[in-house]
Amino acid sequence: MTVDRVHAARALAAESGTDLLVLTPGSDLRYLTGYDAHAMERLTALAVPRQGEPFLVVPRLEAPMVEVSPAGALGLDVLAWDETDDPFALLAGAAAARLGSAPARVAVGARTWAEHALGVQRALPGSALELAGPVLDRLRMVKSPAEVEELALAGAAIDRVHARMAELLRVGRTEAAVGADIAAAILEEGHVGVDFTIVGSGPNGASPHHELSDRTIVAGDVVVIDIGGKTATGYRSDCTRTYVVGGSAAPDVAEWYGVLQAAQQAAVAVVRPGVTAEQVDAAARQVIAGAGWGEHFIHRTGHGIGLDSHEAPYLVEGNDLPLEPGMAFSIEPGIYLAGRCGARIEDIVVCTDDGVRSLNVGPRELVELPG
Amino acid sequence: MTVDRVHAARALAAESGTDLLVLTPGSDLRYLTGYDAHAMERLTALAVPRQGEPFLVVPRLEAPMVEVSPAGALGLDVLAWDETDDPFALLAGAAAARLGSAPARVAVGARTWAEHALGVQRALPGSALELAGPVLDRLRMVKSPAEVEELALAGAAIDRVHARMAELLRVGRTEAAVGADIAAAILEEGHVGVDFTIVGSGPNGASPHHELSDRTIVAGDVVVIDIGGKTATGYRSDCTRTYVVGGSAAPDVAEWYGVLQAAQQAAVAVVRPGVTAEQVDAAARQVIAGAGWGEHFIHRTGHGIGLDSHEAPYLVEGNDLPLEPGMAFSIEPGIYLAGRCGARIEDIVVCTDDGVRSLNVGPRELVELPG
Repeated sequence: MTVDRVHAARALAAESGTDLLVLTPGSDLRYLTGYDAHAMERLTALAVPRQGEPFLVVPRLEAPMVEVSPAGALGLDVLAWDETDDPFALLAGAAAARLGSAPARVAVGARTWAEHALGVQRALPGSALELAGPVLDRLRMVKSPAEVEELALAGAAIDRVHARMAELLRVGRTEAAVGADIAAAILEEGHVGVDFTIVGSGPNGASPHHELSDRTIVAGDVVVIDIGGKTATGYRSDCTRTYVVGGSAAPDVAEWYGVLQAAQQAAVAVVRPGVTAEQVDAAARQVIAGAGWGEHFIHRTGHGIGLDSHEAPYLVEGNDLPLEPGMAFSIEPGIYLAGRCGARIEDIVVCTDDGVRSLNVGPRELVELPG
Repeated sequence: MTVDRVHAARALAAESGTDLLVLTPGSDLRYLTGYDAHAMERLTALAVPRQGEPFLVVPRLEAPMVEVSPAGALGLDVLAWDETDDPFALLAGAAAARLGSAPARVAVGARTWAEHALGVQRALPGSALELAGPVLDRLRMVKSPAEVEELALAGAAIDRVHARMAELLRVGRTEAAVGADIAAAILEEGHVGVDFTIVGSGPNGASPHHELSDRTIVAGDVVVIDIGGKTATGYRSDCTRTYVVGGSAAPDVAEWYGVLQAAQQAAVAVVRPGVTAEQVDAAARQVIAGAGWGEHFIHRTGHGIGLDSHEAPYLVEGNDLPLEPGMAFSIEPGIYLAGRCGARIEDIVVCTDDGVRSLNVGPRELVELPG
């Protein structure tokens, strides 16, 4: 880590007229400083004034943790506060001292807790609160080559979990039992944390964010498996495949699954610099709608991924952001038949200088497992 | 679950002049409705106007999950939004319709993300944003008998993990290896999630929030083990014990550890209705300061616990909240010697009608393990 990212954030914030950026524990803080802090009620914050040196406000009992984290090497001032101090007043005073006057426009992280955001505002009467999202999104959306390799390692790890699905997803097991084994496999295959384990069997597959239930898998079930985790460096995996267990797909399912697969391929194929996020969404949607299944594709086509599972850019109608090399996101159209089953195919892809690279490479067919 | 808690929140909010409560995924939402939703960028929110019926705003693709959750039985209106809708406008419009005019004072959950809090405010121009903390704390701080029993189950589960420490905490192992085994034991002994595993060996024990490192345990190490998890009902455990591995404590350590143990006992003994939170803190602090170790007790004495690991009430100087029967919190004084080692003793206790009940009952001595 170097302090370059902090300085880049300062430059972008200043450009947009923001006087002070305040970022609390979470991916923004980790991205800028390398400090992977827990979000807690005690205020920890990176404060980046438009001018003057950035600084960290931390509870004194956690100051040793900052020192041993990558943030300790950045040379940032660390202002430690004691249990009976007001950390918001400390932050406000230090920011005003650097700026020469109290900041008027204060931007907080998108996922900063309201009690911290409003605490900062209360300590700076008259200031206007806004979101640091535009600044942080701009920086975080475009991955460096090193970040792309971290995402590729995460993608390969989750592909290895899918490759083990025949041993995990069996007739007679409950979704919950399958999910527990998948969670263990996610850790075994190179993650330090499990983000989600969706096992949507039969009718449960028609609920896109269904996670686990006590439903027992029966022969012939179509099962949506959408899984992801966090690697040691904080980068995320996220990959969906759809399986048929102990049988073959009914002819009509095979037919619309073919439409889905064509839609996913069409969306991947359209990715290149200058194409907009909503054009990728449209590419998938046109194929599915064109085949008459449009009303069953009930969500956007994808989301960005990096230190968060879901981050900018979002591939959704209305987002006219042009893609740039280094942007990483999911492409995951789905078709859902309420009461019966669903299917989704999801890869993480990266926009390259002249096209696209997929970080998930396992078979995208409706995979038949023995059961 | 019934809708009673939602109605109680509405009554308390109305009493304090708040026009609209907005609560997003997290413990507040789970407490009021039973819906254990993931915090995500798509807005999910319980909206409770001062008058008129409360309602839920949810992404349409998650509406089936609300229906099968306990919230589905509460009879709340569910307003589902599609991917290209503005959920904040939906929420603002529905609230204004119930109130007869736009709400002026809007309270959001303490841990609501800034992007959601500011999204609501933007949809209600001229409204003032405040924290729902006072209302939710008031409700959640005082546990029902059923909640106390959930916390007691969690406490017994984490006590069983500490009882297995002789098999886990051994000379020659790294903190990280011990922590991984503790995490597995936390799940085996009755939790569905691991909240934290602090293994502070030797000098690392002097950093209260140190978690894990590659340091290898050596004979004679004093080791702080502070661990906790989440049970299936969402209630948390949190218990600290300090061990000596493969040796006995040096005489001076034994001496100040005795002071620490007396301080912890003194703080527990003072708990009863009407005593204030800061008086419990003072009871521990006086013993430690009186013995000359005051500067080494560098944090507050404790925090409330329930559906969050840390919640109100906080046992800290300046908090003059009188304790009431049903309040549950940690009592966890510590003594930290920078560069050498630390010690902490933590129990979760509940204020009863006439005193205190400890939910952790394992030995509080400096436990010597064979190594």
